[in-house]
Amino acid sequence: MKNTNHISLNLNIRGINQSPTLAINELSKKLSNNGMTIYPMGLGQSPFPVPAPVVETLKMHAHEKDYLAVKGLEALRKAVAHFHRQKDNVDIKSNNVLIGPGSKELMFILMMVYYGDVILPTPCWVSYVPQAKIIGRNIKLIHTSFEDKWRITYNQLNDFLLSENDQYKPRLLILNYPSNPDGGTYSSDELKKIATIARKYEMIILSDEIYGQLHYKGEHISIARFYPEGTIISSGLSKWCGAGGWRLGTFAFPPDFDWLMNAMAAVASETYTSVSAPIQYAAVRAFKGGILIERYLLHVRRILAHLEKRCTKIIREAGIQVHSPDGAFYLFLDFSPLSTKLKDKGITSSKKLCEELLQDTGVAILPGEAFQIPPEELIARLAFVNFDGAKALSMSETIPLSENLPHDFADNYCISVIQAIQKIADWVSLN
Amino acid sequence: MKNTNHISLNLNIRGINQSPTLAINELSKKLSNNGMTIYPMGLGQSPFPVPAPVVETLKMHAHEKDYLAVKGLEALRKAVAHFHRQKDNVDIKSNNVLIGPGSKELMFILMMVYYGDVILPTPCWVSYVPQAKIIGRNIKLIHTSFEDKWRITYNQLNDFLLSENDQYKPRLLILNYPSNPDGGTYSSDELKKIATIARKYEMIILSDEIYGQLHYKGEHISIARFYPEGTIISSGLSKWCGAGGWRLGTFAFPPDFDWLMNAMAAVASETYTSVSAPIQYAAVRAFKGGILIERYLLHVRRILAHLEKRCTKIIREAGIQVHSPDGAFYLFLDFSPLSTKLKDKGITSSKKLCEELLQDTGVAILPGEAFQIPPEELIARLAFVNFDGAKALSMSETIPLSENLPHDFADNYCISVIQAIQKIADWVSLN
Repeated sequence: MKNTNHISLNLNIRGINQSPTLAINELSKKLSNNGMTIYPMGLGQSPFPVPAPVVETLKMHAHEKDYLAVKGLEALRKAVAHFHRQKDNVDIKSNNVLIGPGSKELMFILMMVYYGDVILPTPCWVSYVPQAKIIGRNIKLIHTSFEDKWRITYNQLNDFLLSENDQYKPRLLILNYPSNPDGGTYSSDELKKIATIARKYEMIILSDEIYGQLHYKGEHISIARFYPEGTIISSGLSKWCGAGGWRLGTFAFPPDFDWLMNAMAAVASETYTSVSAPIQYAAVRAFKGGILIERYLLHVRRILAHLEKRCTKIIREAGIQVHSPDGAFYLFLDFSPLSTKLKDKGITSSKKLCEELLQDTGVAILPGEAFQIPPEELIARLAFVNFDGAKALSMSETIPLSENLPHDFADNYCISVIQAIQKIADWVSLN
Repeated sequence: MKNTNHISLNLNIRGINQSPTLAINELSKKLSNNGMTIYPMGLGQSPFPVPAPVVETLKMHAHEKDYLAVKGLEALRKAVAHFHRQKDNVDIKSNNVLIGPGSKELMFILMMVYYGDVILPTPCWVSYVPQAKIIGRNIKLIHTSFEDKWRITYNQLNDFLLSENDQYKPRLLILNYPSNPDGGTYSSDELKKIATIARKYEMIILSDEIYGQLHYKGEHISIARFYPEGTIISSGLSKWCGAGGWRLGTFAFPPDFDWLMNAMAAVASETYTSVSAPIQYAAVRAFKGGILIERYLLHVRRILAHLEKRCTKIIREAGIQVHSPDGAFYLFLDFSPLSTKLKDKGITSSKKLCEELLQDTGVAILPGEAFQIPPEELIARLAFVNFDGAKALSMSETIPLSENLPHDFADNYCISVIQAIQKIADWVSLN
């Protein structure tokens, strides 16, 4: 069937895989095949193992084979509701929880089901925009700045909404904090102000809190505390539990959102059906928490906070701007102070910046363009995850949690991260 | 946020969950809560456990936490390609295999990505039509008949396509055999004839062969043997491997279908990302097969074939029409010879038929309407799966495969199935 008449594709999908991320991955592969050492700092995957009790629970439930309820295993919905009540001080009930094969899938179904505009402060996670494009939703980007720590301000949001001249237009505002790509978060006051506007416009907030438990100080605050009637909290096992490859995400809805959750469940029942049964049983253990899980989180946070301090120091000394993240494992590097030098080398876009850096040093990071930063801004995201998380974790466990990690911890147990950061610093100073 | 202005839903999705299946499930729950014994013959779930070596492999890989490649774990894509080459005698290569969280999800993404009409012979599986409706695709139903054993004929397909007067309109023909809801399959000659038309119209065939390995004689034939250039074979772990709740499906594409597979993978990367890693590792073991898996399949087939013979005998003696299935675990009951009697009792639709049967006997089966049979036809699907598959399997394993199961095997180890069938027979004779 060579007849190209029959290459009949949904036009929303054509070209969707031509992402700048893909270009970096392909160049990485090519260079690696040619024998170059690659420092893979593109993919945002937790370097840490899944906590042992959670893995053990998966083994115990390996024989579970029944199709589970579309909305999720009852015990898991209870555990997730408990998790949010305990961690976020938000009154979530188990019947307001929806389980999906990754929060990404749930977001896609949300956008498909909810007929409204998608409001996105940028920089933002790579998948929100392609998802909205596939479904054909209107996307409204609101660009934030380095000066505002990449956070949307009350005034920006207010001005945008005033300019639309339609108070009750259905809108979905997506907030992500601690944030991918920059690790920053919102203060309690900032969240309160955003909540005020959201309430005025009766706007739904999708609050992507997948990195909430990776706030370095364990002080994550959900906007659902201030806007419980309109906030959907998105979370999952991928980041804080190190189980990205397991594919389990969660949505916690406001009490009056049955109309939306049930419509999502209807689509779920015609698509993924339910999340893998053994994985759901294991996830109950993860969300139930307890002392072993809490200790795991304390060690993970301590390592990440230590590592970001080492990295940002080297980065800043090299003349690159960066905000210290509040959580997660990303640095959002702003090369603009070096733009004259870089432009002399023909580097006039984030895509070119990342390609040249990769070609010269083997360090793979992602261009700001992938996060909806204008292509010509010399900004890129780095994930400091290219180290043996199991080893670092077990070393951290030998050091009392009341102490700081020793100064040379990163040099000993996260050496490839430090090497890569140093390579970036050397590269900009040579250029 | 009580303002119902904000209940803003995609109109393709409103009402999608109001299925006849749901009504039966709700009535079952209500009756069960009132103390009635329910015989759940609605859900088509394999009663057998996942083969032991596959469960063991899941345990061994419980710690796997990495995001796997969107298209699937390389070892699994190889195992699936090998499976189809060996079982179906079709030359599938590993790079033409796509892994998804259930074949249902893959079908949804296929319909979303491929811009063409969906051609469905009916009766058909419950999810094809809702999927096409959610996405907004044109659905063309072609009704088959009891007399044609619920199979689409060459002439029907040919007449339909001639009537459309547009040879190369993009079309997706979905065939499912052995079939849900009737267990029937196509002969080699019938498949060859359909292949001829498909080739002439350059139509893509989605060949849903999820029950292929549950052909009682192990003689499943794929249409991909006769139309390899345009057939996508859909399969998975849910039915032959008893692992419905694990959620793993597979598509095997023709060699020139990269344009379609890559577009599907692009959507997959923005939705489910990849299938749960531990599940994929375990699935490698399942698709690799070998003597333990083959013996499991031989026992499963022997039990199902024995059971359907017992059931169809009782059903026919009661005056209900039914074709003996070739595979799977369904009987598609045609009550039309009893329609005068039933109409006297006010039963004039398959929905009413199933509700009254459930109310009077506790036997829950699904109305033909759910399978796109006109609502007024007194037809329903029964899944003979309400027995302890683990126990039946272990008893079968004590009887040499060269022998038949003893006449009373079903009465001893599948007694609730026989009881329910007898209740249906008694119900129609009393009515």
